[in-house]
Amino acid sequence: MNVGIVGASGYSGELLVSLLLRHPQVKLTAVTSRTHAGKPLAQVIPALRGLDRGLVFSDSDASRLAASDLDLIFLALPHGAAADFAKVLVPAGKRVIDLSADFRIADLATYERYYGKHHAPDLLPQARFVLPELTPPSWKAETRLVAAPGCYPTSILVPLVPLLRDGVVQREHIVANAFSGVSGAGRKAEEAYLYVERAESAKAYGLVKHRHLAEIEEQLALRTGAPTVIQFNPHLAPMRRGIATTVTVPAAPGATVESAYASWRAAYASAPFVQLLASGETPDTAHVVGTNRIDLSAVLDPRTQNFVITSAEDNLFKGASGQAVQIMNLWCGFPETAGLV
Amino acid sequence: MNVGIVGASGYSGELLVSLLLRHPQVKLTAVTSRTHAGKPLAQVIPALRGLDRGLVFSDSDASRLAASDLDLIFLALPHGAAADFAKVLVPAGKRVIDLSADFRIADLATYERYYGKHHAPDLLPQARFVLPELTPPSWKAETRLVAAPGCYPTSILVPLVPLLRDGVVQREHIVANAFSGVSGAGRKAEEAYLYVERAESAKAYGLVKHRHLAEIEEQLALRTGAPTVIQFNPHLAPMRRGIATTVTVPAAPGATVESAYASWRAAYASAPFVQLLASGETPDTAHVVGTNRIDLSAVLDPRTQNFVITSAEDNLFKGASGQAVQIMNLWCGFPETAGLV
Amino acid sequence: MNVGIVGASGYSGELLVSLLLRHPQVKLTAVTSRTHAGKPLAQVIPALRGLDRGLVFSDSDASRLAASDLDLIFLALPHGAAADFAKVLVPAGKRVIDLSADFRIADLATYERYYGKHHAPDLLPQARFVLPELTPPSWKAETRLVAAPGCYPTSILVPLVPLLRDGVVQREHIVANAFSGVSGAGRKAEEAYLYVERAESAKAYGLVKHRHLAEIEEQLALRTGAPTVIQFNPHLAPMRRGIATTVTVPAAPGATVESAYASWRAAYASAPFVQLLASGETPDTAHVVGTNRIDLSAVLDPRTQNFVITSAEDNLFKGASGQAVQIMNLWCGFPETAGLV
Amino acid sequence: MNVGIVGASGYSGELLVSLLLRHPQVKLTAVTSRTHAGKPLAQVIPALRGLDRGLVFSDSDASRLAASDLDLIFLALPHGAAADFAKVLVPAGKRVIDLSADFRIADLATYERYYGKHHAPDLLPQARFVLPELTPPSWKAETRLVAAPGCYPTSILVPLVPLLRDGVVQREHIVANAFSGVSGAGRKAEEAYLYVERAESAKAYGLVKHRHLAEIEEQLALRTGAPTVIQFNPHLAPMRRGIATTVTVPAAPGATVESAYASWRAAYASAPFVQLLASGETPDTAHVVGTNRIDLSAVLDPRTQNFVITSAEDNLFKGASGQAVQIMNLWCGFPETAGLV
Repeated sequence: MNVGIVGASGYSGELLVSLLLRHPQVKLTAVTSRTHAGKPLAQVIPALRGLDRGLVFSDSDASRLAASDLDLIFLALPHGAAADFAKVLVPAGKRVIDLSADFRIADLATYERYYGKHHAPDLLPQARFVLPELTPPSWKAETRLVAAPGCYPTSILVPLVPLLRDGVVQREHIVANAFSGVSGAGRKAEEAYLYVERAESAKAYGLVKHRHLAEIEEQLALRTGAPTVIQFNPHLAPMRRGIATTVTVPAAPGATVESAYASWRAAYASAPFVQLLASGETPDTAHVVGTNRIDLSAVLDPRTQNFVITSAEDNLFKGASGQAVQIMNLWCGFPETAGLV
Repeated sequence: MNVGIVGASGYSGELLVSLLLRHPQVKLTAVTSRTHAGKPLAQVIPALRGLDRGLVFSDSDASRLAASDLDLIFLALPHGAAADFAKVLVPAGKRVIDLSADFRIADLATYERYYGKHHAPDLLPQARFVLPELTPPSWKAETRLVAAPGCYPTSILVPLVPLLRDGVVQREHIVANAFSGVSGAGRKAEEAYLYVERAESAKAYGLVKHRHLAEIEEQLALRTGAPTVIQFNPHLAPMRRGIATTVTVPAAPGATVESAYASWRAAYASAPFVQLLASGETPDTAHVVGTNRIDLSAVLDPRTQNFVITSAEDNLFKGASGQAVQIMNLWCGFPETAGLV
Repeated sequence: MNVGIVGASGYSGELLVSLLLRHPQVKLTAVTSRTHAGKPLAQVIPALRGLDRGLVFSDSDASRLAASDLDLIFLALPHGAAADFAKVLVPAGKRVIDLSADFRIADLATYERYYGKHHAPDLLPQARFVLPELTPPSWKAETRLVAAPGCYPTSILVPLVPLLRDGVVQREHIVANAFSGVSGAGRKAEEAYLYVERAESAKAYGLVKHRHLAEIEEQLALRTGAPTVIQFNPHLAPMRRGIATTVTVPAAPGATVESAYASWRAAYASAPFVQLLASGETPDTAHVVGTNRIDLSAVLDPRTQNFVITSAEDNLFKGASGQAVQIMNLWCGFPETAGLV
Repeated sequence: MNVGIVGASGYSGELLVSLLLRHPQVKLTAVTSRTHAGKPLAQVIPALRGLDRGLVFSDSDASRLAASDLDLIFLALPHGAAADFAKVLVPAGKRVIDLSADFRIADLATYERYYGKHHAPDLLPQARFVLPELTPPSWKAETRLVAAPGCYPTSILVPLVPLLRDGVVQREHIVANAFSGVSGAGRKAEEAYLYVERAESAKAYGLVKHRHLAEIEEQLALRTGAPTVIQFNPHLAPMRRGIATTVTVPAAPGATVESAYASWRAAYASAPFVQLLASGETPDTAHVVGTNRIDLSAVLDPRTQNFVITSAEDNLFKGASGQAVQIMNLWCGFPETAGLV
């Protein structure tokens, strides 16, 4: 099976290239980049020296990709640009996995409130948001256009959805604080992301209005059956990769740590990438970076009757490119962990 | 005025030495350390090469300090050990500023629940917890034994106390997430604090049971007039110094961003170390490290009616040694900012 | 083929476990650790959660290992301890790959000058130092005991040996400066390796007397035909992994950049892990960490007639555990890159 | 005395502002920046919140500065731009301390080979390069235009000049490797200096042709009486500030460690910012960051008869802005350490 990547020179594109080059079931035959067209892959991504099989970046041309022999195409582009490609590739019969926000949000008005005008609203009804551990498997046959989830949403939805669905926690006063590595901002040459500015620096940002809220709350509603509003406080941490998320949520009456873990065990019995840590142990981003895992843990505070739920993932891996490969694996009938361990 | 430091070789002791060596109104004449007795100051604290005025670590001997000509003594010791010194020094007529937890908590039972047996319970009634921006100034004449606040408590109490006292926020569902540099753990040669373990690592720790809760909640009660229970979620961040704290708290009915800032302005009109940032701007630990400042900001989320309050401080400076010097300045009638800017 | 690791809880042991668990041709069936005997693998190495196939650390017992069905055993132990195991395992017919210094140095007197008394001098004659890119392949049939090279030596020998052998550079005034990540010091709970001490800190150490000198100079002599003395200046850099080495060496009369690259190309034509960068481009540790590669580059300074040669490798991978697996691959007739890309 | 800074928003400009705001003998009354004209100082340099005395960035206008009541003006500008200002300010009678390279190199041809066309060659004869510890004090009366030294040159010249001058070391085969924090590259929004690119990355750069060579070699010749060519290998280290330099240089016949230290002690007997460490102890950037110090040490390798000399300094402090203030102190007759400890 031949696969391609559009926009392969950002941080998530780079990891995607690396994963697909080693994937046992697919052949990466096209990588595109407006900026780097014509350059050998390893010149742009030096970590791949010796592994790039002579691949050269081509220009990002939607029509040419539509006419190619690629079976599946990953879009690792900014929002807006992704929709521009999808509206050419999907009608041409390609399977598309989009890592941008363009098709994550089913409700057009919500999308446009957070992201501005949608470039391909007609595709929205056929697109599917797929968080493999949470989306019912029927999506595989229903669509040719999959939206891979955002990094923060993955870190919040995986721990929270089962607990809300199973009535272990309440739906009010949910507070999610997340600490992200700097790669979450992408490879942007802006002063704010310089080494000297970010090293030894921790700070909140995007309070009240972060774009991932749209996706988090829509999914919470769709997957747990009722509208849910949360406080989402993202932060930047002085590290390259990783997201550590801490969710404080009031326990339902009678809920215990054991009922929380039972809910998780039921939801993730066959999920190879979800690891449950003992209550009291806390996930550490350093333990998941470079893996497609998400580690979870929970304690119940007897003083406040809140659960404090912690998760850790690699924002570029389980939070982006690894999860996109996981989606491909499921979609194409490969083992779920193929190319990911 | 002659001052001394007991236990000057930890991270806060080291900063305290550095501040007192440059202080215009006092003379640092004694530094003690069990481990380093006999060594020149700059051999143990190489950052002070050329500035140490020939000072040599002496052994930590309470009786000798009691008999010395020191006017004021700082204790930079683990809890327990600090009380052991205080019970010799205070009766000998010395002024003591203790940086440990031993005298921060007025209620003995609370102290012992979190820290174990108190080594000098008889001194508790005369000790005063002094957070300069919040403690009414009468303390100066009332005591010879001051407890300097903890790092996390400072970062939470400074933003929260005025808002609770003025009725700008509610008292329930308060969630404080804090993100501390590794120096908060002290200079402990433990595997968990090795460079390789902590670099590129973010994680929660001490959930539900962190010792600073005792101090935070007692002060919230004493300063705002009612028992207050909070969820306190501390985290380790891969940086040396700094605490970034984010408090989510429901707004009181009718409260606005402006009422929050009005409350802060009233409380901190003459506080030289509190900086209010515009709503929407967030404090950054990198901007306060090396200063005695605490930077504050607040937004009100129209969707949740929560305030999200952010603060940043240097855990060793405003969170420990700088604040201890600030206390000394006030106590001795020096300018509040002497030796601190 | 069943393999085991003695001392699997240090940094190189940890990476070795991770590599062998995924290796397509071998089965890791024994991991030992005095400290962690009885604990599940993933409890000690959380990065392996979900991948550890139920392995449990056993105690490090040489006789039991000698009697086991293991075909090949890796020793990831401090020097001295490694020899203690080798002298039981080798006579029992096991193949042994030792990651310590114990069998790297053929000359006993040299070994003892740098490391103290040797614990198994009788084994020295049959041991082979194997740097796969440089050691002639006859070693495979000659020995049951292989010494894997040290991290610094690898970073210096790979670029330097061909140039000396081919007469491209002179043998005098060779200066090698190397800059290592902190994991090079091992997982030692010492104050010097705490996060707070090492972050934002660069410094030379071990000048004049670093133990790796013994190995570097003996190999230079053996591989290039004449005694060679170098200045070796190791440094600590604030990073977890990686070694960047810069060697200044006078060019032989008439030598050019092209002759240096020709020498390298001849030596490494079929070496899958050596990458030659264009002259003027410099290797970056960030590009090789997590790989078994060593990247090389050279410039010739027209003002000084010195070559300045740069290399970068991952000290734990090509500098230790990855190279040990590469040695196993060659020894056992597996593809050289098996389990390493 | 009124002083001003042109170009105060780069990293060295920022530190200069901070130092001059606290300086006991001068009043900082003008700070200029093309980019930030009109903004309050603390808005651009948040570390100065509460300390900026209401200063506002003005536009960088040479004629206006020439007509102002400023006594002394610091230029913290890129080369070329600095000369453009100097040629207006110096004829107007202002004292000027330039932190750029424009007036560091006495020989015009050398300057232009490294930096391109000089913007004010007519000023060169009256300019003085002042490294306070090395430049004979007659400069104070001779000039109105001082060039403050570069960061790398300071770290090499201070240890090396006395040893060459006193014949302790030879003049051939000198190799200087230096490791600089990322702030050395300035506040440039380029991909190469992003946090994600530089964290955990060490690499050589600018080999053979770094611009500071011009200054290093001219000063070595001028201060030690003979042309001297060195190999200078700069590297980037993953830290914000600091330079660790290691110089390998053959000992003169009969030279000993003691003769090296004697040479240094003679040269720096009254130098408040030079600290000599015991032979065997090595300077650490972490110990000098935030100070105007340069720490020195030397060992003599009995095997190679090379001295290995190490120095550490803060590239922005002793390597730039602190040294500029030190120059001002000497020039204006203030205590050399005023505002610097």
